[in-house]
Amino acid sequence: MLIKEKLEQIVGKENVLTKKAECCVYALDSTNKREFSLPDAVVFVETTEQVQQIVRYAFENRIPIIARGAGTNLCGGCLCVDGGIVLSFSKMNKILEINSTNLTATVQMGTVVADLKREVEKYGLFYPPDPSNLSVSTIGGGIALSSGGAKTFKYGSTKDYVLNLKVVLQDGSVIETGSNTAKNVTGYNLTQLFVGSEGTLGIIVEATLKLIPKPENSALVLVYFDTLQDASNMVNVILQNCLTPASLDFLDRKTLQTIENFYPSGFLDREAALFIELDGYDINSQCQKLKVLCEQNGGKDIKLAINKDECEKMWTSRRASFGACAKLKPNVVAEDVVVPRDKIKELVYGIRQICDKNNLLVCIMGHIGDGNIHPNIPLDLNNPADVKNYAKAKEEIHKLAVSLGGTLSGEHGIGLEKIDYMDFAIDKIALDYMKQIKKLFDERNIFNPGKIFR
Amino acid sequence: MLIKEKLEQIVGKENVLTKKAECCVYALDSTNKREFSLPDAVVFVETTEQVQQIVRYAFENRIPIIARGAGTNLCGGCLCVDGGIVLSFSKMNKILEINSTNLTATVQMGTVVADLKREVEKYGLFYPPDPSNLSVSTIGGGIALSSGGAKTFKYGSTKDYVLNLKVVLQDGSVIETGSNTAKNVTGYNLTQLFVGSEGTLGIIVEATLKLIPKPENSALVLVYFDTLQDASNMVNVILQNCLTPASLDFLDRKTLQTIENFYPSGFLDREAALFIELDGYDINSQCQKLKVLCEQNGGKDIKLAINKDECEKMWTSRRASFGACAKLKPNVVAEDVVVPRDKIKELVYGIRQICDKNNLLVCIMGHIGDGNIHPNIPLDLNNPADVKNYAKAKEEIHKLAVSLGGTLSGEHGIGLEKIDYMDFAIDKIALDYMKQIKKLFDERNIFNPGKIFR
Repeated sequence: MLIKEKLEQIVGKENVLTKKAECCVYALDSTNKREFSLPDAVVFVETTEQVQQIVRYAFENRIPIIARGAGTNLCGGCLCVDGGIVLSFSKMNKILEINSTNLTATVQMGTVVADLKREVEKYGLFYPPDPSNLSVSTIGGGIALSSGGAKTFKYGSTKDYVLNLKVVLQDGSVIETGSNTAKNVTGYNLTQLFVGSEGTLGIIVEATLKLIPKPENSALVLVYFDTLQDASNMVNVILQNCLTPASLDFLDRKTLQTIENFYPSGFLDREAALFIELDGYDINSQCQKLKVLCEQNGGKDIKLAINKDECEKMWTSRRASFGACAKLKPNVVAEDVVVPRDKIKELVYGIRQICDKNNLLVCIMGHIGDGNIHPNIPLDLNNPADVKNYAKAKEEIHKLAVSLGGTLSGEHGIGLEKIDYMDFAIDKIALDYMKQIKKLFDERNIFNPGKIFR
Repeated sequence: MLIKEKLEQIVGKENVLTKKAECCVYALDSTNKREFSLPDAVVFVETTEQVQQIVRYAFENRIPIIARGAGTNLCGGCLCVDGGIVLSFSKMNKILEINSTNLTATVQMGTVVADLKREVEKYGLFYPPDPSNLSVSTIGGGIALSSGGAKTFKYGSTKDYVLNLKVVLQDGSVIETGSNTAKNVTGYNLTQLFVGSEGTLGIIVEATLKLIPKPENSALVLVYFDTLQDASNMVNVILQNCLTPASLDFLDRKTLQTIENFYPSGFLDREAALFIELDGYDINSQCQKLKVLCEQNGGKDIKLAINKDECEKMWTSRRASFGACAKLKPNVVAEDVVVPRDKIKELVYGIRQICDKNNLLVCIMGHIGDGNIHPNIPLDLNNPADVKNYAKAKEEIHKLAVSLGGTLSGEHGIGLEKIDYMDFAIDKIALDYMKQIKKLFDERNIFNPGKIFR
């Protein structure tokens, strides 16, 4: 039986795409790719049983099977390497339960992050992960890559909110990886083995997520610094003064200029800006305390947003950075490296030097509180010189991060994009154990093959 | 060469015990055990290199190797099953670095939890896990069992504070499982595979732990309720009113009576008491808000501790519960089960029923905010009827927790004590994958054999 017929039998004709033009749409994600492999079929699953049947079929026939949410990842995480079945979760997107006593939500993998956040807020609850693409990106993608966002400094990333997963394994069986309880130390932590495993160990179909009570209030402080050293030092001052901001974000001069250029937001032309979100009780005293600390430590032109609309407006301007950078050149690539917090300055200077040397522009921003930096590199991927320079710079940036005690990815994942760098960051023995774990859960290499490891 | 000679060669004569009387001390931990296996040798390691050499020797000769911290665990976690080498970390107890910029501490496994907490406080920082035995228990034990304590409601348990581990593997090689960064999604999460694995996958020698800024202030509220339903409902009221206590602990009538009986602390004779610790900003308003909510929801005789000494005094009385229960009978066994928060009432009533039926006393307390309940069962382990009744009750309690959607352990681990119940909580397929992971990291079954799984 042909793939098409078999899949139609499982999910119905209306849920299978096999025409080239249709499959093309699912051959790309948000990663800038010039070459790609077409899926043999795209399937819109609606039930766990369908996923089980498809996995059994793929296992028997050694067909790659690639789970896909909104395709907003930046690491080639849901691209085919050599055809296969793309399993779209866009129809498996239900919030199955919000339990305000247990502080949990049980969701299907296609659930959009922003939808979940909005729904739980109706119960006075809070799901903290907020990747920039949250209005479209899915919980499944977030779990696959343990996505973070601006609030990870205080609240952690997706992995910190996953209690239990329902997973379809290679033989089509379904397991739960943990329990729907706040605490659990009963055998090995299979939950965290699957979180961040980028769809390479099995197909996650449901997750029970931890929620927390919604913080009473929040406010956003924007403050400028004349030097990166001052901005970086300010982070330490905050932490040493019993303040725990929800967000500690950073934009460099080039990023501020670029946003102002294309989306005027009133940003000043300064070396560095910090976005500091405070939340919780007694927000006015927190803001006052922060303001005084900023003034004492070289902070300039402090701007305060205390109501929700003002905060949202300021965040929107900050989120425009990627879009603004994309206007400088035909393309923009977003990198994601992470270092111990005390190496931020070396990392930022080093990235600028690398890009300068390789004739590339770079706008640097990121979650400075986490040591997690996103260099946005505008370039023309149709220009062979740019492509060559970028390849060189990219490798150097990742080597630099590792040499500073950091690693390859804080929240975007490895996918295809960083697969060649894995042995910079992880020693051969550890990498070999990871590959053996992959082999254990995926004997026939059907789950998102060619990702994370060669 | 004899074990003794070989080990003396590695660590020096002064660091090896092999006499029966000496080894006896290390044949027990805080679990109530009547039968035990003597270690063949006890070794006090001081360096990673020594651990590597011992592991190589144990691997070659198929000798069990059991890592041991303070031996305060309650699950038989560091007992020998059939002899072997006990690897004591009591001399490998250094805090290697506290980095107040990175908010990290790097420690050896024998570091006492309270020592670390005290040291980081000097930097205005906070390491939240606080198991009741923290004045003696070690970071190594905490990581092996992902221990929690009273503050897990807000802050999570040990697993939430482990960024990176240095581990000696079966072949004597050393790997790092992650990176010393706040975020990391670079390959599989080996760190969380080792946390909670109870020494069954390798020997952890160092950990880099996440620290957070110290909360500005804290206060403790003690409030009584006439029914368990009211106490349980109060937890929901708190969560739905934007309050996030650090602790949400619970004592039942029998526990209150028993503490009063042996360590008079002024506790009242009521059906249930909640210990609610608030921390962070604006502590007075938080307390006022909580007080009003308690009064509106059946809370009685509210007692408030706002300075550090008062709080500590109240916590000390609460921590006396285990010691007090131990005075009711020659022995006391502490259980540890966890359920979704909305099943607390059923769990507590069910535990009482089970103990009644089996002619056992029971004092129930626990971290109600986490759904994590500790029944303390006073009994006489020299009385065969008590032993038989306890065995029956213990199994029934764990079956009950699982039937309520919970699991076998929230923070004490499986060890030997719950090994027979694993298939109540985890389905055969998941359990089988766990065993295969064990096999992968421990081909010759030398690492803490006979624990977690049969």
